[in-house]
Amino acid sequence: MTFTLHPRLVADTEPITDWPLSRLLLMNDRRFAWIILVPRRADLFDMTDLDQATRLTLMDEIGRVSGNLKQWAKSHGGCDRINVAAIGNMVPQLHIHVVARHRADAAWPGVVWGAGQTLPYGAAELQQAVSELREIL
Amino acid sequence: MTFTLHPRLVADTEPITDWPLSRLLLMNDRRFAWIILVPRRADLFDMTDLDQATRLTLMDEIGRVSGNLKQWAKSHGGCDRINVAAIGNMVPQLHIHVVARHRADAAWPGVVWGAGQTLPYGAAELQQAVSELREIL
Repeated sequence: MTFTLHPRLVADTEPITDWPLSRLLLMNDRRFAWIILVPRRADLFDMTDLDQATRLTLMDEIGRVSGNLKQWAKSHGGCDRINVAAIGNMVPQLHIHVVARHRADAAWPGVVWGAGQTLPYGAAELQQAVSELREIL
Repeated sequence: MTFTLHPRLVADTEPITDWPLSRLLLMNDRRFAWIILVPRRADLFDMTDLDQATRLTLMDEIGRVSGNLKQWAKSHGGCDRINVAAIGNMVPQLHIHVVARHRADAAWPGVVWGAGQTLPYGAAELQQAVSELREIL
């Protein structure tokens, strides 16, 4: 079985880069600095589907994304908190949200999932964001 | 500095047990099978505040809670998915939500955070739930 990204993730995100374990995607919603990590293995649903060593790699990658996204978000609205979540009620494929939140953002102090309407980036703005994130990730 | 549970967590939950790293709390909302893990160390805000070995312990404890909660939830509404999240927009102290979700629950397919009104357990029912969870956790 080969890794294939769920069509919903393909539709909602822009690929940034591949790390040893995870594909990094930028959520196409300019309201939030929001990255999704998808471990590049077939048939993963829960974090418990990963063996212990791979889970540690995932934790490391989540930590690296969190730190770098926090820096990037400082020039894109700010960052008071990093939200990390594996939900998957709509997309069964294992994926982890890492979202930089700040007190003036469109959903604070609520969560981003289900909060109002997605506001896609403009085409040039999206490429600019992805390009900046590729520099730091 | 000693570990102290945030007052909001004290108010909203019932303690289940202490594991090597985390205190396990039952969220007092009978709509969901919902456990919160709080690493028992002072001054933790993000998962990245933990060193690598401790993060691995946290991942293991999250995995153990997920598996056991899934079993317990089967006799309390069902479990189609486990949601795991570190949010902390309202409670800065590091805490991790592990929630057993099913397709007929009060928030599906949305998330539990901010979903409608909390529905506390009755006193006897809460003690029963905590007692059952102590058996398996």
